[in-house]
Formats: sequence, structure tokens, C-alpha cells
Amino acid sequence: MPLKPEIEKPESERKRVGFALVGIGKLTAEELIPAARTSEHAYIAALVTSEEDKGEAFARAFGLTEADVYTYDEFGKLADRDDVEAVYIVLPNSLHREYTERAAKMGKHVLCEKPLSVSTQDAQAMVDACREADVRLMTAYRCQYTPEHWAARDAVQSGKLGKVKLMDSIHVQVQQDPEAWRLKKTLAGGGPLVDVGIYCLNILRFVTGQEPEWVFAAEHQPEGDPRFKEVEESTSVMLGFPGGLIANFLTSYGAMKTTTLRVMGEEGSLLMDPAFPYDGLKLKITDSEGTHEPSFPEYDQFALEFDHFAQSIRTGQQPWTPGEEGVQDHVIMDAIFESARSGKRVDLGATAGKDATRGDKKPELPQK
Amino acid sequence: MPLKPEIEKPESERKRVGFALVGIGKLTAEELIPAARTSEHAYIAALVTSEEDKGEAFARAFGLTEADVYTYDEFGKLADRDDVEAVYIVLPNSLHREYTERAAKMGKHVLCEKPLSVSTQDAQAMVDACREADVRLMTAYRCQYTPEHWAARDAVQSGKLGKVKLMDSIHVQVQQDPEAWRLKKTLAGGGPLVDVGIYCLNILRFVTGQEPEWVFAAEHQPEGDPRFKEVEESTSVMLGFPGGLIANFLTSYGAMKTTTLRVMGEEGSLLMDPAFPYDGLKLKITDSEGTHEPSFPEYDQFALEFDHFAQSIRTGQQPWTPGEEGVQDHVIMDAIFESARSGKRVDLGATAGKDATRGDKKPELPQK
Amino acid sequence: MPLKPEIEKPESERKRVGFALVGIGKLTAEELIPAARTSEHAYIAALVTSEEDKGEAFARAFGLTEADVYTYDEFGKLADRDDVEAVYIVLPNSLHREYTERAAKMGKHVLCEKPLSVSTQDAQAMVDACREADVRLMTAYRCQYTPEHWAARDAVQSGKLGKVKLMDSIHVQVQQDPEAWRLKKTLAGGGPLVDVGIYCLNILRFVTGQEPEWVFAAEHQPEGDPRFKEVEESTSVMLGFPGGLIANFLTSYGAMKTTTLRVMGEEGSLLMDPAFPYDGLKLKITDSEGTHEPSFPEYDQFALEFDHFAQSIRTGQQPWTPGEEGVQDHVIMDAIFESARSGKRVDLGATAGKDATRGDKKPELPQK
Amino acid sequence: MPLKPEIEKPESERKRVGFALVGIGKLTAEELIPAARTSEHAYIAALVTSEEDKGEAFARAFGLTEADVYTYDEFGKLADRDDVEAVYIVLPNSLHREYTERAAKMGKHVLCEKPLSVSTQDAQAMVDACREADVRLMTAYRCQYTPEHWAARDAVQSGKLGKVKLMDSIHVQVQQDPEAWRLKKTLAGGGPLVDVGIYCLNILRFVTGQEPEWVFAAEHQPEGDPRFKEVEESTSVMLGFPGGLIANFLTSYGAMKTTTLRVMGEEGSLLMDPAFPYDGLKLKITDSEGTHEPSFPEYDQFALEFDHFAQSIRTGQQPWTPGEEGVQDHVIMDAIFESARSGKRVDLGATAGKDATRGDKKPELPQK
Repeated sequence: MPLKPEIEKPESERKRVGFALVGIGKLTAEELIPAARTSEHAYIAALVTSEEDKGEAFARAFGLTEADVYTYDEFGKLADRDDVEAVYIVLPNSLHREYTERAAKMGKHVLCEKPLSVSTQDAQAMVDACREADVRLMTAYRCQYTPEHWAARDAVQSGKLGKVKLMDSIHVQVQQDPEAWRLKKTLAGGGPLVDVGIYCLNILRFVTGQEPEWVFAAEHQPEGDPRFKEVEESTSVMLGFPGGLIANFLTSYGAMKTTTLRVMGEEGSLLMDPAFPYDGLKLKITDSEGTHEPSFPEYDQFALEFDHFAQSIRTGQQPWTPGEEGVQDHVIMDAIFESARSGKRVDLGATAGKDATRGDKKPELPQK
Repeated sequence: MPLKPEIEKPESERKRVGFALVGIGKLTAEELIPAARTSEHAYIAALVTSEEDKGEAFARAFGLTEADVYTYDEFGKLADRDDVEAVYIVLPNSLHREYTERAAKMGKHVLCEKPLSVSTQDAQAMVDACREADVRLMTAYRCQYTPEHWAARDAVQSGKLGKVKLMDSIHVQVQQDPEAWRLKKTLAGGGPLVDVGIYCLNILRFVTGQEPEWVFAAEHQPEGDPRFKEVEESTSVMLGFPGGLIANFLTSYGAMKTTTLRVMGEEGSLLMDPAFPYDGLKLKITDSEGTHEPSFPEYDQFALEFDHFAQSIRTGQQPWTPGEEGVQDHVIMDAIFESARSGKRVDLGATAGKDATRGDKKPELPQK
Repeated sequence: MPLKPEIEKPESERKRVGFALVGIGKLTAEELIPAARTSEHAYIAALVTSEEDKGEAFARAFGLTEADVYTYDEFGKLADRDDVEAVYIVLPNSLHREYTERAAKMGKHVLCEKPLSVSTQDAQAMVDACREADVRLMTAYRCQYTPEHWAARDAVQSGKLGKVKLMDSIHVQVQQDPEAWRLKKTLAGGGPLVDVGIYCLNILRFVTGQEPEWVFAAEHQPEGDPRFKEVEESTSVMLGFPGGLIANFLTSYGAMKTTTLRVMGEEGSLLMDPAFPYDGLKLKITDSEGTHEPSFPEYDQFALEFDHFAQSIRTGQQPWTPGEEGVQDHVIMDAIFESARSGKRVDLGATAGKDATRGDKKPELPQK
Repeated sequence: MPLKPEIEKPESERKRVGFALVGIGKLTAEELIPAARTSEHAYIAALVTSEEDKGEAFARAFGLTEADVYTYDEFGKLADRDDVEAVYIVLPNSLHREYTERAAKMGKHVLCEKPLSVSTQDAQAMVDACREADVRLMTAYRCQYTPEHWAARDAVQSGKLGKVKLMDSIHVQVQQDPEAWRLKKTLAGGGPLVDVGIYCLNILRFVTGQEPEWVFAAEHQPEGDPRFKEVEESTSVMLGFPGGLIANFLTSYGAMKTTTLRVMGEEGSLLMDPAFPYDGLKLKITDSEGTHEPSFPEYDQFALEFDHFAQSIRTGQQPWTPGEEGVQDHVIMDAIFESARSGKRVDLGATAGKDATRGDKKPELPQK
């Protein structure tokens, strides 16, 4: 990971977009802050955290001062920080709406972790708030910004695989801590589906550029397991896409880490395995000529997200994965939960056109 | 493939079980006859075919005489052949019942290709006919006889993977010839589900030893494609097993060859890819220690089937995959078709105990 | 492996070349006879063996009669068999010369297993004898007839890998039986080098089309191991090719089966692993675009050899790997043994032009 | 890569060893500084660089001040910095000796990049200087500190592979810039051998714990290529180890990146591919049971080195790869150059006992 100390290019920095990171957890510490260092168009200007000590330690370590650290109570003070043009919300899902709305009111652009919220209604409210305040809202779907996932999308949409007939995807992992907020329904809005299964759902929609017309789902919530008192442990989903294309995906908090995407067409197939980690993505495309594993340049997924959003702020364009893209996954996840509850197929009605919920600004892919 | 010319051990041959192969297609020519050569307990004693010339050519090539070749009209003459103790039925599915019943009446044991028949009713009639005639009936589920699939079953049932939560399986291939009997509903009884999807269904049942409690399915039958006038092109199936275990499988006649089986447990996972070819099966088991790809001795899948059935004839035991095992897949496939038609989940009722439809005689696995 | 019983096309058979197989061991039984069945241009017309019973068993099993089986004493009687146009010599190496000379004198063409003989001198005598008798002589280097090895050669020679700088190859396996003729110096002419290392040597020469200018080698012959009283256990070889290209290869009778070929160029590299088995060859080509694993049609390596030689007999052309190609490996192996003995580099003198020891007739590669 | 800002644990820092990084290139910026952040026992206290601006930028970015940045002329001022207990020398090879001797005289411990120097004589002088000054000297052989390479060593030494017979290793890459100091003989001391081939040499010695008894080598220096005016482009080396074990390795600056290690024993074999990158190492061990790819915890190779050396400073023990270990590779590389020049095998004389040039302190491997 190339380090580009901010001080190295003082001029360019003035044009970079300053972000306040809201929430300091594992993702922030291990991925977002290092990523911000490698970003060309963004930098970390402030931190918002409940643990002031931890925040100050981070701040000093990364060239910020104590004055750049805010408690949640002080969130409103960011209004005075002209250098903070955007916030990156890395809070429990149930807090996404509140902090997005507050940020929007302060005129700050919002990059929000997935899932966008805990319900379609809340997610839509976030979109509305940002539109009203005329600030950009981006759902942090990092897999829509990698060259590997774009190569998969291109293989699907270019016809290289022939007509695509079936797809499947898996994102399962073990959640061991019964106290994790991700296992509390009110905080998370659901179990593995909203946290890791959403990768499958989102990427199936992304590679096809299309929306499912119906869903069927089943879930399992084991009795007696302290982890799964509030949320489901495992979910299996079947999605019917236009033209008869069918996709399945599996997600769980109770199975050893596996992440895959498979697309099967009449003239070829593709496999991403692993499909969703921060690095080490592997794509194989097979057709009658053989199997090709393309090589890609090194990059940082989070830096690509920061850069994309910073640029969309500068140009005023909708980011590729705006709030609307996050809302759409909530609509489908609501249907998935309903199907799992009722044991019945749920129709989603007429679907929008290709990439209807995506922005105008296409991601810039890293070059070799 | 080690060749063991029959003449080499004249004594042992007398104890070997003579089979009449009924139907000479690609499978017979390329797999069954070579396999029979390597079998320790079986040999080909006669051929039944509509193409007499072809049959005689095969016969002479493999040390039989013209007298060992029969037309379908002459099938009844096998009654006079004491050396023909069993028939192996490799005919279009719709003919399985008729030839099984005729064979049973002649006192011949029956090894029948999968699917056992074209409906649950016909399949059950075959079981009844063989029971009445006191002959053995075996469904030729070759994947229940390989060391790789048994190693997968052991990994699942031994607890090595922890509690199993989710499974998926794929068997898709391209059927190009619109004239193939496999695309005619009355001959085949269905499309890819009954031909290749049945591998997924059967192996998911085999590795768990359990029966699904409910199914949901969707299928696609493209308009205007001359191949899919009568049968579906692709089918996606979700199966609910006891204890909340959910399995998906995908099958198609319109997608590039892919065959997989994946099982995900809390402490490990396994992947067979490819999962169903005649050779080259690859099994990987992953747990916290890493990934292990066990090695297996070389063997011929069809020879293992021949040997198993020949031995079950000699010992009078039920073969491991008797007719009942084939009937059970028909019961589930009927439910799959119903679900695909209705768009509704179909409950299968209370399930039988572990391996309830399997015989007493466990397969002998090839030794290194 | 598609079976094509001879009787199926009686006309074409008349044009096929009848072979006498001289020597019935594992290779003959498990590979050559099945291969001959799939050959388009060759068939087995006679067997020569010391074990008459075994020969007759094979004969009958494969549609021949007792009259088609000869003892070594009766080898000369093949002179009377017009239908036997060629012999395939599968005897211990030390017998290659004698049987080749006798066959040549009878006007029979000779396909001879590798190594061609037990010394350069004997090998050259075989070439001379066949030239004098105006019969074709082919060294059975099956890896010069596969589409995978030709794809490797094309990658090297087309410049796809850029200028090639370094190569290496491995062929090691465990020889467990101390009584095997391959461990007797007078019968085999050497240890693993002449039996399995020769694959590395031959394929390195084949993919480049060039000859080494010098060799250096070291070998190990463990004391007290009953298997290695007469021949070396392991050999390491370095070869200097024109233009500064250096290649290493390793061979052993004391290490778990491994067969590889690796070629490294400035713009790409290729890896065959495994490189030398009868089937399951795997080729990967890596360049700046990624890694490609091309697919190839199914085929039988031995059938390709039979077909090639049969056609070269029909057309009167030199086969691609004539006796001269076998002699050249002996020249180099002699130098390897000398280097291992002396601990010194051995120069091979000026090298011949590209493919100088190969015939005019290029192999026909199997088509998809 | 977990970030542990220094400020987070002010107490522990007092006990951590402060390093001055001498030389700021790609390795320093991209690997060493991030690694130092994750180190438990070391931290960066000062920077020495010719590019003062760059140094100050780095300093500020990482919580140091301008006062912590020194030019090479000011190197001597580190004597006054009690908090700088050690230096990490990341300079062109020809400067290793001078800066090591100067550091030793100031009482600073020395961690020096490989190769230790540009000749055996210079390397030995460095060892002597550090011994005289009673400071620790460690050669930065990062591959002797990873769990993957230790697992390979254990497989070799535990007998899991049976008696080991042959090994080979590859480290090749393309050096494109003709101006790189690594291509200047006086600065680098040699070409790819001393830079990347040394990995092969060092790891072959490490996994066996033994020293080669003789070497043979050939090299290629293409005419007319501006990159290879002073140093060789490619080198092939054969090494004779005690007991008849033979190892080959290949190194080049003119071939697409490849790094491997293969060990072949009578009962098993191992393959590391890639074998030498900073991350993504892959180890496969094959025996009669199959192939096992063990999993390992995540870690940072450079942090492991920093930690090991810091701890050996605290405990006063010889680090696992002291200067002596670096000297030994120079002795062998001298012999390799001599062999390549003379075309003759070079004997290295009697070899020392197992791990004779390694320290008492075994590396602590990262735990899951």
C-alpha cells in the first residue's frame, strides 16, 4: 500500500475533500484510515467517536490535533468546519438515518456504509433529506468500484458468456460474539442478510444491471443459540430476473467464511472466489477456449470509494452508487424477509430500466 | 484403465455375473463396455439393441458372438440364457418400466439408469415388479459409489465441518441437438432436472442421509428455442432439510458444463468441483487448519456399480441404491415440478429416517 | 475413450496399418491396446510375448486368434504376415536394437519405445539398419504429439513469452521394486535419467527446437539401498542452449511423483504441471494480461502416436520423431553421465539447426 | 494491517526499541514504515535520508518532527539520540559496510538489508565491527521469520516428506530501468543473484539447516542490452548438499516475476508458489494422503523482523539471522560467481553443523 503523506503535496491537498469519519471501529482503524492515506482526492479532516481517548490517539497518530476529534454530542460542531465537506458514516445501521439527516442539514455530503439503513422507509428518508439539502449521498458498495467486479459485469453484459441463464452467490461467515450489535435487531435491522448477504444481492444486481421481479426465501433461526435470539442465522434466497434468469444466494452468520459469485451462460461461465474480501479477489472466466484468470493492478478498495465520492462532490454528479441504490436493496430485502416469514414467493412488480438506481458517474478503474 | 481379459481367469468368470446390456448408445459404448472389462464380479454376456449391425460389431469386437446380440423384439429370448443373470437398462427413460417388468418376469435382476422412470408411479411399479419376482433392482446412481463422494458424506456426517448450515450444488450443461430424446417430454419425463439436476438432488440427500421436508422451485422455458418446446431449459430448486438446513441447486440444458457440490458448516466447508464427471472428481475440505485435497485410488465408476450389483446379487442383499432410492427422487422431482408450476412452496410431509431408502449393502470403496 | 470396434468399418480397416506388439507389460495392456482400438489408422494384428498364455488371453479378448500370438522365438515368422506392416517394440531397452534390426530385415516398420536404446552407438545402429532396409523408424516420444505440448512450443517459439531466458523441468517418481528391470544397468542402460528424465530432456529440446551446447550434471546413488546397486537414484542436469538460454532438470527414482515444465521469458511464462502423464496435462500461460489455461479436446496419446506412424508409413514420410531424434537424446545422455562421473561440464560441440533431428511430417493435432 | 498508533500505549512505547531508518526508498515507504506501526517492540524514532524534503514529509506524516530527520552527513549525530537504539540500513549494498561500522562505533545495533554486503570480506568486516562494539547485527532475511517458511522447514526436517532427494527454487523478475543502482556492479556487488537469487539460496539452506558442499553455476549476460553492461542477467545454480541432496535454483532480472520453492522427498513433496513475496505466500504439502494447504494467521513480515530484532536487543541474544548468516551466503555466492566464470564446479570444503550460522533466538511465529 503506497503511502502518500499529506505533507508531500500541500497544494493538491487544498483541493482534496476533507472527510469526518463518524464512528471508529475495526473498519475505520484497519481499512478506512489507511485507505484515506492513499486517496488522491480525499483526506481525513476530523474524527467523531464516543471514545475520546481513542479518537485523540488516532488523531495525533495521523497528523490531526485534539481539536479534530469530536464526541457524538459535538457532531453539530462540524457545521463550523468548512474543511469538512463530507462525512463517512460507519455507525450501527440504526443510526445511519439520524446522522445522515443531521449531516445533510449542515450541508455535508454523506458517504454511508451499507446497508443504507434498517428499513426501506428510513433509507428513503435519507435520500430525501440529502436531495432536499442538495448534498450528495453515496452508499458505500465497495464491490461496485473494483476492476474485478467490473470485469465480471463486462463479461456478463458483453455477451462473452453467451446468454446468461443462472447465477449464484454465497457470503457466509461466523459471528461468534453474542453481544455484537450486528446481532441486535433494532441496531442492525436484520441478521446476515443485511450485513453480508447484501453483497450477494447487490453484486447480482450490479453484474446484470437489472432488478429481480420476484423473490423466494427461507431462513433458519436456531433455538437456544444465544447469538440468534433476535436475528436469523442463515438465509437462502432465490431471485427471478427479467427474461427468465434465475439467481440463488446463500448467507449466514453460522458458517465458515466463504464468498463466491458464479454466472453461467450458454457459451461460458465466470467464477469469483473469493468474491467479496478487501483484497485477493480472484476472477476466472471460462469459455470454449479455456479458462482465463485476468490480472489487475493493485489498489485499495476503500481509497477507490473515497476518490469516487470526492470527485462526484467536486463535479456535482450523482455517485455511481447513490442513496437510491441503497434503497433498492432495502426494497428487495424487505421482500426477502416477507417471503421467509410467509413461505411464499413475493413479487416485486415491474422493474426499472438498466442501472436505474445508479448514478451518472462511472467509477474510474485503477490502471496498471 | 486396467484391462482384464475375461479369458485370463476362466474360473473366476464362472462366478461372475453375466449382464445383458439393453440399449447401445454413447454411454454403453464409451463407458459401460470398458467398465465391464475392469469389473471383478460382472461381465457382458449379451447385447440388446435396435441396430443389429452395430450390436454385432460390438459383440465381435468384445469377444461375443452374433448369437449374443438380440433385437428388442427378441428381448424375451434372454429367458433362455442362464448365463444372463442381470440386465442393465440404458434406454430412454420412458422405456425403463416396460423392460424392467419384462426382465423381472424372466427372473433377471435389473440395474437401471437414472432417473428410475418418468414418474413416481412408474418407478414404484418397477420396485413392486422386482419385489414380486424376487429379483434385485438397483438405480444406477454412480456417485453413491465413489470414494470422493463417500469422503464428502463422511466429512458432513462425522462433524468435521461442525453443524452443517447450507449446501449448494450445480449441474448444468448444453444440450444442443433439438432432436435428442432427452428433450422429448414423453421419452424423458422432464428436462435437465430429471437428467442432470437429479445428480444434485441425489447427492444432497446422500451426503446428509436425510430427506427434504419442502421444496421451492422456479424454471425457465425460453420461447422460440426449438430445443425447449417440450421441456424446461433451466431449473432452480431450494430444499428445506430437517433441522433448518437449506440447500439450493441449479440445473440447466442451456449453460456451459459446470458440476459442483458445496457444503458449509460452522467449522469447515467442502467443495467438490467438478462434482459429477466420470473421472477427475476433485474434493477440497477446508477447516481452521487449512485446505486439504485428499487423494484417492484410480478406479472406474461404472465398474464399481457393476461390482456392487453383482455382489448384491450373489449375497442376496439389497443394493445400496435400490429402486426405492430412485422412487424417492421421483417423489421430490414431482414436488419440484409442482412448485415450479404453482410458484408455491410444496411440503413433502414427514421424512423417513436416515438412509431410509438405501439398502443394507454398503459400497466397497476402491483401495489404494 | 471412444471405442471403435474394428468390425465397424471393414473397408477402412484394409487401409489401416497392422501392428505387431512386441512385449506385453503394463504399458501394453493398459495403454497401447486400448489406444489401438481408438486409432483411425492402425490396429493390432499380432502379439509377441514370452508368456504365451497371457498373449492368447489378450488375443482372444481383443478379437485376435491364437494364431496371432507369437513367442519371441517365433518373431521371425512375422515375415510371413503381410498384414503386419509394423512392429511396436515395448521391450526392455537393451533388446530394442536386436528386435529393431530383425524387424527391419523383415521389411517391417518400427515404432520403438523411448529411450531408443541403451547407448548412442546402439541407437545409431538401429537408425542405420532401418535406413538400409528402407523402413520407417519412430521413437515413441508421445509428448511430441499432444496439443498441450505443441501449445507450449508455440508459446515459446511465437514470442508470446518474450525472449525466453530460463527453463526447468522435473520428472521424478518412486521405483519400489528392487527387481525391476529398469534398475538393472545392462537391461535399462541407466537409471531414472533414461526412463523418466528423458522426458524433461526431450521436451526442453522440443519446445525450443534447439540443441544444448553443453551439459553439467550431478547424480546420487545411495549406498545400501538394494534398488540402486547398479543405477543412480537421482540426477540433476543443467543444459546450456544457444543464445545463453539455460535449462535445469531433475529426475529421480526416489521421490514422490512430480512432473513439470516451466519456461520463463521476459514477457511471460508457462507452466505445465503435470507435464508428462498419459492424461490430465495442465498448461498455464501467464503474461501481463493474466493467466490463461487453454482447453484442449480429449484424445488418447498413444492413439495419436499410432496414427502418426501409420500415416507416415502410408505417405513414406519421416515421422516427426524418427530414430535420429532418439539418437540425439542418447548423445546428450552420454554427456550427462560423463559430466556426473567427472564433475565437469561437458561440451557437446556445434549444434544442428532447428528441429534438425525431426522428420518432415508434423503431427496432426486432435480437433475439438 | 492493524494500525496501532504509538500514542495509544505511551507506557509500552518507552520499552520499545527506537530505530533510525537509514535510506528512504520504495521499501522504506511502502513496507518498513507501515510495518513499524504494527510492531509491538519497535518504532521509528528517526529517519536518515539524502532527500531532506522527502524525509521531513515522512516525519511529519508519521508523528515525528523535523528534528528527527538527518542527512547522511549528519548520521553521526545519532550518537546523541539515546532513544535511537538501532539502525535499519536500507542503502545500496556497497554502503552497508560503512554505515554498519559507523553505527556500531556509536553503539547502535544494526539491522541490515540483504545481501549483507558486496563481498565476503566486507560482510565479515561488518560482523567483526559489531562484535567488537558489542552490538547486535542482524541480516534482514524476512523469509526466515514467516510461519509459511517455518512450516516448510518443519516438513523437511520432521521427515514428513520422507528422505529429501531434490529441491529447486526460482526467483526471477524484470528489472527495467537501466539506471537502477541494482544494475551497477560497484553499488550492488552483482546482478540478480545477490538481490533475488539470494532468496533461493538462503531458503534452501534454511529449510535443510545445512550448507552446500559444492556449487556449479552458469550465467548469461546478453550483449547490447543497456541494462546488463555490468552485471549478469540470469544465473542457474546447482548446489550439492550433504548426503547426496541436490538443489537447483534459477534467478534472473530478465524474466517475468516467478518465485517458487519445491522440495521432493520419497514420501512427499512441498511447493511454495509464490515463495518470496511480502504477502500471499502459498504452501502445499503433498503426501500419500493428498495435498494439504495449511492456513496461517495474518501478519506483516517486516513487523516480525522488527519485533525479533528488538527482542534480541532487549534480551541480548543473537538474532536468528545474525551477520554470520549473511556472511555465509556471500561465501557461497562468491563460489557461484567463480564457477560461472570458470565453468567448473567449485568445492566449498567441509560444512559446519546444523544451523551453524544462525542465532540462538528462534523467531516467534504469529499465532492465530
